[in-house]
Amino acid sequence: MPFYNEKAYELGSNRSIIREIFEYGKKRKSEIGADNVYDFSLGNPSVSPPEKVVSTLKTLLSREDQTGLHGYTSAVGDLATRKAVAEYTNKSCGAGLDPELIYMTCGAAASLTISLKAVLKSGEECVVFAPFFTEYKVFVENANANLVVSLPEDKTLQIDIKDFESRITEKTRAVIVNSPNNPSGVVYREDKIIALCDILRKKSKEYGSVIYLITDEPYRELVYGDVKVPYLTKYYDDVIVCYSYSKALSLPGERIGYIAVSPKTKDAKEVYDAICGAGRSLGYVCAPSLFQKLIATCADAKVDVSVYRKNRDILYDNLVAMGYDCVRPDGAFYLFVKAFEKDAVAFCEKAKKYELLLVPCDNFGVNGYVRIAYCVDEKTIINSLSAFRRLREEYLK
Amino acid sequence: MPFYNEKAYELGSNRSIIREIFEYGKKRKSEIGADNVYDFSLGNPSVSPPEKVVSTLKTLLSREDQTGLHGYTSAVGDLATRKAVAEYTNKSCGAGLDPELIYMTCGAAASLTISLKAVLKSGEECVVFAPFFTEYKVFVENANANLVVSLPEDKTLQIDIKDFESRITEKTRAVIVNSPNNPSGVVYREDKIIALCDILRKKSKEYGSVIYLITDEPYRELVYGDVKVPYLTKYYDDVIVCYSYSKALSLPGERIGYIAVSPKTKDAKEVYDAICGAGRSLGYVCAPSLFQKLIATCADAKVDVSVYRKNRDILYDNLVAMGYDCVRPDGAFYLFVKAFEKDAVAFCEKAKKYELLLVPCDNFGVNGYVRIAYCVDEKTIINSLSAFRRLREEYLK
Repeated sequence: MPFYNEKAYELGSNRSIIREIFEYGKKRKSEIGADNVYDFSLGNPSVSPPEKVVSTLKTLLSREDQTGLHGYTSAVGDLATRKAVAEYTNKSCGAGLDPELIYMTCGAAASLTISLKAVLKSGEECVVFAPFFTEYKVFVENANANLVVSLPEDKTLQIDIKDFESRITEKTRAVIVNSPNNPSGVVYREDKIIALCDILRKKSKEYGSVIYLITDEPYRELVYGDVKVPYLTKYYDDVIVCYSYSKALSLPGERIGYIAVSPKTKDAKEVYDAICGAGRSLGYVCAPSLFQKLIATCADAKVDVSVYRKNRDILYDNLVAMGYDCVRPDGAFYLFVKAFEKDAVAFCEKAKKYELLLVPCDNFGVNGYVRIAYCVDEKTIINSLSAFRRLREEYLK
Repeated sequence: MPFYNEKAYELGSNRSIIREIFEYGKKRKSEIGADNVYDFSLGNPSVSPPEKVVSTLKTLLSREDQTGLHGYTSAVGDLATRKAVAEYTNKSCGAGLDPELIYMTCGAAASLTISLKAVLKSGEECVVFAPFFTEYKVFVENANANLVVSLPEDKTLQIDIKDFESRITEKTRAVIVNSPNNPSGVVYREDKIIALCDILRKKSKEYGSVIYLITDEPYRELVYGDVKVPYLTKYYDDVIVCYSYSKALSLPGERIGYIAVSPKTKDAKEVYDAICGAGRSLGYVCAPSLFQKLIATCADAKVDVSVYRKNRDILYDNLVAMGYDCVRPDGAFYLFVKAFEKDAVAFCEKAKKYELLLVPCDNFGVNGYVRIAYCVDEKTIINSLSAFRRLREEYLK
């Protein structure tokens, strides 16, 4: 019997499959050159941070008071930052956020682990919609609760309302909505959101409980054309918004995001305090100070989404023409593609022969799919097309 | 019965006493002016980051590849950063660290929560030495384990070896050593460290177990004169080093530090994997990317410690002359002072009348003491002396 914690060891040795492929890609690139590896594994933005972000960082670092710039902030974050977040989000989405109920975090993963730990109790359940980001399972289990998966509509990958209703029990304490979705790029339609919220109201009334709707929305700003992402505080009261600037400002490594408790939430102040307590126990002291100060100025900045849209168009159009089966994404930078065999892992291994690094999605809650993160150079997409063609041909033989 | 997690709520509503006073200080300063409040509450460095840090940050932000600069790193951190950490620490301390067993973190609190979660199992025990940083209790309990407090020698606040030995049981899985110590500024003498390690070897042999020695050393570089802080990997095998650059580089808000598993640790690779797994489950994706890249260049940089030393000298000499009873600190930037009444909280309330913000240390494991964080302007120290004198006089009446 080992003396370290075996469960932690298990999580660490079976690393996230995405990280695993990312590490393989790094190795492979050093072997044959970065241009010869078509690495679609990681949601690492390829578009530069907005000019306003770059220049604001330079301005901040020229400030006289460098000590204050890098000092501790309040655990919940600088008030100026929280005000800027609320102001922008209220203006752009009609979110109705209150700076006093916003808690700055080290990115979306922190937002989620903290929120889940704040509301879930041992043995309770958290419902997620397949396909779902695999780490949800890890985060829910860290809160000693159980993950329950609701399966999507077959072709559209939209929420299947009937299936969802069947997953709600007396133990349901939270539901995570991730739209635009990772790994599918799907944006949940407004009629689905309305139906989902109706069910939550009905069920929480029936059980005399509160079911928290947790939104995981790092991709909110990354949508194409005139697609609208419903803001959930407008449809339901007990909402906890988990946001990250990783994708919106192309700062994924800097770990900056926030949690906002909707003021309409039952016992909103207490839920917010529970978030402060959960953050404290998980070892979060404050969100990175420099990037908090950046957000105070740049909450409204945006990366050039047209780059991702162009990538989507090239990749989607070409893959469909080759005979690949996939849902056209309305947002994020992922394409969710049906593997040409039942075993998505085996499919991804074959793809590796053509230097295509794709992510098998069996543990995203739907079998036989792979994720293509197309947040890469346009050149990589163009160059990868012949590899995708050869992969397709291997299966036609 | 509330539907959120009550334990998280409790932790969040009874915030860390230090943070509480810090918030009060902010409010009070806005009322009567910052110069009129003698805020000794928070260990927020007053010395500027080293010039090398400031200039390296500027250079990094002028790089062409801003996307790569802010992108995700490996979960364990950039290899260049880990190499720089090992190289500097091995050279300056003979630490014997291996870059492949270093895991970059979001600061010391993250280093500790992750390490504790990686090695502790439910119901096991972690021994800490009073006086101890209050958050240890929160972090140990987050790992479902129990905190056991070893009491210090009376006058010196050094480790009481006999007391320590009596605290070790079959359930002991970890011991945290924090030197220079927060809140006392005491550096544990080498003979104490040797005796402590002898006991750990004896006890782990007796129980056929492994007892991990976890060092919490954000203050390692902050020592005065020729005081040496023993590096624990040289005295014991099963060591996990928790480090932070918060104080050494005056970057506390930026959340950058690391965990290093000593290569001599039993099953070192597995312990390291458990650390990766614990980090994953607590929502840590990677340490802030920009500051990782900074450390790759600035691992050897240091703040001007002479400023803190001067503060110590003025404050210690004057308070002792006034009749205050305190241990002369060899490192960190804290003075640990006996209150003039049994109830340290009441003492701190009285101090507030003179605009002195001190931290009562009852929940640091020893009663009747307060902490003075002298990481403030020299001017604040000088100006505060008359307030300290009046506080003293109030008790002499």
